[in-house]
Amino acid sequence: MPPIETFPSPRPEREFEIAITCPEFTSLCPKTGLPDFGEIRIHYVPRDLCIELKSLKYYIADFRNRGIFYESVTNQILDDVVAAVHPRRMTVTGDFTVRGGIKTVVTASFDESSQPA
Amino acid sequence: MPPIETFPSPRPEREFEIAITCPEFTSLCPKTGLPDFGEIRIHYVPRDLCIELKSLKYYIADFRNRGIFYESVTNQILDDVVAAVHPRRMTVTGDFTVRGGIKTVVTASFDESSQPA
Amino acid sequence: MPPIETFPSPRPEREFEIAITCPEFTSLCPKTGLPDFGEIRIHYVPRDLCIELKSLKYYIADFRNRGIFYESVTNQILDDVVAAVHPRRMTVTGDFTVRGGIKTVVTASFDESSQPA
Amino acid sequence: MPPIETFPSPRPEREFEIAITCPEFTSLCPKTGLPDFGEIRIHYVPRDLCIELKSLKYYIADFRNRGIFYESVTNQILDDVVAAVHPRRMTVTGDFTVRGGIKTVVTASFDESSQPA
Amino acid sequence: MPPIETFPSPRPEREFEIAITCPEFTSLCPKTGLPDFGEIRIHYVPRDLCIELKSLKYYIADFRNRGIFYESVTNQILDDVVAAVHPRRMTVTGDFTVRGGIKTVVTASFDESSQPA
Amino acid sequence: MPPIETFPSPRPEREFEIAITCPEFTSLCPKTGLPDFGEIRIHYVPRDLCIELKSLKYYIADFRNRGIFYESVTNQILDDVVAAVHPRRMTVTGDFTVRGGIKTVVTASFDESSQPA
Amino acid sequence: MPPIETFPSPRPEREFEIAITCPEFTSLCPKTGLPDFGEIRIHYVPRDLCIELKSLKYYIADFRNRGIFYESVTNQILDDVVAAVHPRRMTVTGDFTVRGGIKTVVTASFDESSQPA
Amino acid sequence: MPPIETFPSPRPEREFEIAITCPEFTSLCPKTGLPDFGEIRIHYVPRDLCIELKSLKYYIADFRNRGIFYESVTNQILDDVVAAVHPRRMTVTGDFTVRGGIKTVVTASFDESSQPA
Amino acid sequence: MPPIETFPSPRPEREFEIAITCPEFTSLCPKTGLPDFGEIRIHYVPRDLCIELKSLKYYIADFRNRGIFYESVTNQILDDVVAAVHPRRMTVTGDFTVRGGIKTVVTASFDESSQPA
Amino acid sequence: MPPIETFPSPRPEREFEIAITCPEFTSLCPKTGLPDFGEIRIHYVPRDLCIELKSLKYYIADFRNRGIFYESVTNQILDDVVAAVHPRRMTVTGDFTVRGGIKTVVTASFDESSQPA
Repeated sequence: MPPIETFPSPRPEREFEIAITCPEFTSLCPKTGLPDFGEIRIHYVPRDLCIELKSLKYYIADFRNRGIFYESVTNQILDDVVAAVHPRRMTVTGDFTVRGGIKTVVTASFDESSQPA
Repeated sequence: MPPIETFPSPRPEREFEIAITCPEFTSLCPKTGLPDFGEIRIHYVPRDLCIELKSLKYYIADFRNRGIFYESVTNQILDDVVAAVHPRRMTVTGDFTVRGGIKTVVTASFDESSQPA
Repeated sequence: MPPIETFPSPRPEREFEIAITCPEFTSLCPKTGLPDFGEIRIHYVPRDLCIELKSLKYYIADFRNRGIFYESVTNQILDDVVAAVHPRRMTVTGDFTVRGGIKTVVTASFDESSQPA
Repeated sequence: MPPIETFPSPRPEREFEIAITCPEFTSLCPKTGLPDFGEIRIHYVPRDLCIELKSLKYYIADFRNRGIFYESVTNQILDDVVAAVHPRRMTVTGDFTVRGGIKTVVTASFDESSQPA
Repeated sequence: MPPIETFPSPRPEREFEIAITCPEFTSLCPKTGLPDFGEIRIHYVPRDLCIELKSLKYYIADFRNRGIFYESVTNQILDDVVAAVHPRRMTVTGDFTVRGGIKTVVTASFDESSQPA
Repeated sequence: MPPIETFPSPRPEREFEIAITCPEFTSLCPKTGLPDFGEIRIHYVPRDLCIELKSLKYYIADFRNRGIFYESVTNQILDDVVAAVHPRRMTVTGDFTVRGGIKTVVTASFDESSQPA
Repeated sequence: MPPIETFPSPRPEREFEIAITCPEFTSLCPKTGLPDFGEIRIHYVPRDLCIELKSLKYYIADFRNRGIFYESVTNQILDDVVAAVHPRRMTVTGDFTVRGGIKTVVTASFDESSQPA
Repeated sequence: MPPIETFPSPRPEREFEIAITCPEFTSLCPKTGLPDFGEIRIHYVPRDLCIELKSLKYYIADFRNRGIFYESVTNQILDDVVAAVHPRRMTVTGDFTVRGGIKTVVTASFDESSQPA
Repeated sequence: MPPIETFPSPRPEREFEIAITCPEFTSLCPKTGLPDFGEIRIHYVPRDLCIELKSLKYYIADFRNRGIFYESVTNQILDDVVAAVHPRRMTVTGDFTVRGGIKTVVTASFDESSQPA
Repeated sequence: MPPIETFPSPRPEREFEIAITCPEFTSLCPKTGLPDFGEIRIHYVPRDLCIELKSLKYYIADFRNRGIFYESVTNQILDDVVAAVHPRRMTVTGDFTVRGGIKTVVTASFDESSQPA
């Protein structure tokens, strides 16, 4: 995957929130090979680092030809972005289009205060 | 009823949420035999298992020619899906179309922490 | 008033919610005799009984030629429906159309746990 | 029926348009006696007379306890209002709420230029 | 199929329009046997007869367990309703839900003036 | 009334359109003295002159304490603005709020080609 | 100011809510004398008295020709209505239109339990 | 490209319309290689053949890894689908997402009556 | 002004349409020096050339610090873009935000068939 | 930067809220020099001082030609406005338009009770 780059928070001592919406997500269904589409939303409170948006765009675009399930996409993005920016808190939502008459939204969160030391 | 199949959660240790919307529900009114229409929404936090969507689609479609009341539909789906995936928490909402100038929405929930051991 | 009929809850031991919307309410203004219009919304958690919708429709339609104020309509419906189905909790909202450039919404609630024994 | 009163057009020589919307229409179903609800819309180009709105309100309110079909309501209102204000052109639309899962809108028009002399 | 019943137009000499919307249409896919869902809209100008709505409801409901393609549904309904009410003009629209990420709307019309004598 | 000022069209030889919306109109009902509210919309094709917006704002605000009917407001504004800017074509719409459960929209137009020479 | 009149609550012992919306508020800017427009919303839980709507309409209309700032309008209405009906709780919101490209909403509340005895 | 398959029109003698919407289009920018996203809409009046939707889905999905400009996408799809189904008339619209703060919609049409014999 | 660049139409013989929306327009008021904001929409049918979007972005951005009236902005953009791409037909719309409680939309068009030879 | 001016709160002893929306924000990207656009929202509970809106308008407009990142804009506005009006509590939200297919919203808050004495 392309690396998620960072830049220093302009107010590292302040707990402020950043909400990023990527409406142009696409991947492949691992069963059928057919394209899946959705919107990825990332809400986070930075510690020292913020997500550099251009690198996030390349990171998201890299799912384009990978076969992966909805539940895994959302958790994988959370794990990768947490590893890159070490936020105080982060929530990732994957909001996917209708398949077989059924729509799915997956939401996963990270909170540094509930992690083992 | 067709079985609700499952697959392992990609992060069984994490409490993440999955929201599934099935806008194409139909059953029959047990009194008149006339068709009822609605949308079924399932929000849940998996323990070890996730709902396999294709089997859910067949499960939902199976109500098509059954006579059942709104209040029973929603509770029955909750019971069946809880029995299949043993979630940490689950809420099922049945949002039904207008009948006799009256609209009905039924919501039922399950929380493993409030169940008898 | 026509009686509000009931049927047994399909899961009397479970605290699930039922939301009923009646967008076709009309009564008369007790001062002017002119028609008033509005929407009545009933949210409740049943104990042993659910509201039978057809009887509710006749009950609501019976306000058609009665002179009654907005504040009384909402409280009266709450009292009548609570008396009929003995719910765990119930909220009734009367959402009335603009009169004299002013719109009014009245909301009243019942909770069995705050009633005298 | 209460009479539809009129007042002189402020510019009888000009073909301008007046669009009136009455969202609070109700009548009775002639078969079942149950209430019907809808919105009546009147668009017209006056000749010498305009519709006085307060009298229209009483005229519309008078349908409240009459049994009449949707198709007749719309045509009757067109006939009555044309007879009262002798417009250059008029269209009446009756936009009624869902009954039995089916919604109906009826539209009828008058044009003085297509009338027999 | 259940017969589409009629009643006499209240103004047979007037060319007025009736628009009927049936948002609760369902049939089966002839290839897969899976349910299809959609909304049927009928706009027409009656000659001597109007569509009786209750019979239309039963006629529409009868597609529930028939296997039929979208393009055929819309044309079949047009043919059947034209044969029943002999309108001056009629348009039927079938607006179907997303299948395989693709949404389809089919529209077919009848005009008595373009029919052979 | 405050004068409606003008400035030269930047392209007097071109038939381009200008649409102005004034959502903050208020006047008084001549019968009851109570305030009326609405939105005035002016669409026009200038000949040599355009409406200066600040003067239009004062002109519109001047209706604030005048008693005038909806039908007259719209026609009066058309007459005044046509007299000030001599447009090729102009339409004025007065879109007024609900009174007595009835909403009114009045539209009047001017076209220089249909005026006497 | 015209007095805000009251009538007895139909259920003085019950803590129910009344929400009133007055979308037709206008006053004058104390600096420029130009008209301001907005919507006033009043939510309250009555003790013994309810607001009589017709008197509220005259009270609100009386701001029409008064010069007053947004922040003062909202607080003044809260003070006046609290003094008139002695509610258990009340919130007044003034939602004003854009001025200089900036929109302002002011919200002030009263709670009898936080008042000095 | 995968072939666009067809099936016979159920009413080849009737000029009815079919509107197909594919909201899940993606291709690559030929300059930057970055993904583009959009919605393709096809409206047509069939002659003897209709578009088979599953083959259209594969045809549309095949643009996924091709570098092509917006203007060419729309015209290419029109040419390919016309060649496959020989319609009486067809319009293809490509509605693409914002790039560099600018949104683009391209629309191209075919009409057999304006083609050389 | 930065030049508006072009590229050859992919189908110069076909009259297809391109609609471009630039929601991020800003200029300065020539009277007050304060910023104005709006959306520029360009619809055109190309002859041999299409607008290159990146150059259009720089062209639009160049208005940022220029003092110019709404009516002139729209006509100037039409003149500049027509001169650059020589379209068959073009319409430019400038849709500007509220100033002094008044909103303005200006629309200007070019058609080569109505130009002098 | 132009100073943010203040005026005394009309009710300094009351904790009421003021919500200000500035939909017309623009600055420059520090990397590319290209314009950024967005909406700034300020919610606050005043202590003794309120924000004077005209000075806020000039303060916001002053970002027009400054190169600054989204995260810094929002925090800088919070710091500057807190320094000017010493509120009890304040939240500033910067809601910026899509760049590279990604939308960003930044939210930062101040609470006097969590500040060092």
